[in-house]
Order: sequence, then C-alpha cells, then structure tokens
Amino acid sequence: MSSRRIVATGTFDILHPGHLFYLEESKKLGDELFVIVARDVNVKHKPHPIIPEDQRLQMVAALKPVDHAMLGDEKDMFLPIEKIRPDIITIGFNQMFDEGRLAQQLAERNLPAKIVRIGKFADGDLCSSRLVVQRIITKRGQDHNNVSETEQRS
Amino acid sequence: MSSRRIVATGTFDILHPGHLFYLEESKKLGDELFVIVARDVNVKHKPHPIIPEDQRLQMVAALKPVDHAMLGDEKDMFLPIEKIRPDIITIGFNQMFDEGRLAQQLAERNLPAKIVRIGKFADGDLCSSRLVVQRIITKRGQDHNNVSETEQRS
Repeated sequence: MSSRRIVATGTFDILHPGHLFYLEESKKLGDELFVIVARDVNVKHKPHPIIPEDQRLQMVAALKPVDHAMLGDEKDMFLPIEKIRPDIITIGFNQMFDEGRLAQQLAERNLPAKIVRIGKFADGDLCSSRLVVQRIITKRGQDHNNVSETEQRS
Repeated sequence: MSSRRIVATGTFDILHPGHLFYLEESKKLGDELFVIVARDVNVKHKPHPIIPEDQRLQMVAALKPVDHAMLGDEKDMFLPIEKIRPDIITIGFNQMFDEGRLAQQLAERNLPAKIVRIGKFADGDLCSSRLVVQRIITKRGQDHNNVSETEQRS
C-alpha cells in the first residue's frame, strides 16, 4: 500500500502557532506531508515577506509535522504538484484560493488530488504574521536604535 | 546504558536559523535534548520579548531537534536543571553567561553537567531576532496601517 501524500502550501513568513496548527492538521490526513513554500516573487496578494524564501524554507523544514519542504515554482504553481502527485491538497482557513477553480485546474492537468480546507486555529495571542509585525512596530518602532546595541539573540 | 541528556536554553523570541543551528548542534552532543525557554519576567538583559512565553515554548517544542521543551523557573534558573540532571548544558555563541561562574554555581548544587559553548552559525540573512525586528520596522513601519487590511497570514 503506497503512502498517502499531503501537500500544504503557504508563505510562512514569521512562524507562529497558526502555521503549526495548519501543518499538524494537514499531516493528520495522511502519511507524508510535503510543504510548498511560496517564492518571494510570487507573494503579490499581501505585503512582501520579511524573511527571504531560503530562510522561510529552512524553518518550515525544521518543524516536526513536515516530511518534505520545497520552494514553489516561480512560473507555474502546479509543477511541484505534478511531481508530488498528492492525494490531498490542504488550504489554510484564510488562504485566498477559490476551491472550485482550483479543483478545475487540477482536473485539467489530470491531478486527482482532493482539496481540504483546514479550519481556523483557536487563536492564541499572536497567531498571524501581521499581528507580530504590528506588535513589533508598536513596541519597538520608537526606540529600536537604543535597543539594537544590547539585544543579541532573543 | 542511560541516555545522554543535553540542556539548551534561550528566549527564542522570533525563530530563525541561528536558533535552529544552536539546537541542532546541542542535540548532536547526546540523545535527549531538553530546552528551557526563558520566562517573560526573566528577560532583563535585552528588550522584552515580542512573543509571549507560552507561544515561544510552543514553537520551540515543534522543532525537530527538540525532545522536551519547558518554561524556566521564574525565581531559580537552576530548578529545572536539578530535575533534568543533564550531562551537558550548551550555551549559544552570544549568550551572556560567564562560564566559570556558571560551572561554580552548578558545582555548589552538586550538578556535574559539563558546559559546552556552541559556535556561531555562518550567518544567513536574518539570523537574529534583532535583525528581523529592524527589517520589519524599516519595511513596514511607515505603512503598516495600509497593510493590515490586506494581509491575512504570511
């Protein structure tokens, strides 16, 4: 019996428990979790990532639920899907995919993956990169020059 | 033969490959890696963490090299060390411990752990929480109000 392959996708700019929940729930649906990390040039529907793509890839690959992580294709988002041939593609609760259109595109390419939308994580304090960014600007924006000499690694 | 226990410590505010390198190198020294995550109230030598302690703990626990993660003791940093009784305690290249004094304090408590300082990670682009914070302030500080309505999760 072949293993059941799951694909999850995302930018994963500043990792938080919402990402982790999405990946853990995705992994539960099968045996091998492949994560496709968005290329910098392809993030157009929201602000450009803070963290460069190689670093975002490295951190996603280090998370326990993740079996394989790779960068997306800059031109054709379906190319890695064609290589992986997943049984399931998961979508995060706030990812802006039209599931009907995605299903149609997969069918046109003869990719029979089922699409599963993962529910919303019961939010903790800072479960969005946007909120982390806002907190940083609020807490540190005024005095980051003073701060930079004393902070080493936090 | 009992397993060789390693303790690593840190704040782990915004996770980056420098943290990962420190934890991976620590894990290589033994069998079980215990990570003690600094309590919010105990981070005094650098700016207060952006991410609350429970969330920092959750994200550290999700990293592949980490076998056990726990919050530190608010009053006595040696209490968790006494419970774990590690063979080795690792220190990050930029953690401000006086290794001689630390060895003396461990000896006074009858804790025979060896202290190992982990070398510096060959820096990638953003291997410090400080640099991530600075980039966020530079890139987003001016227009984060415009941004907040479009960005969902990155």
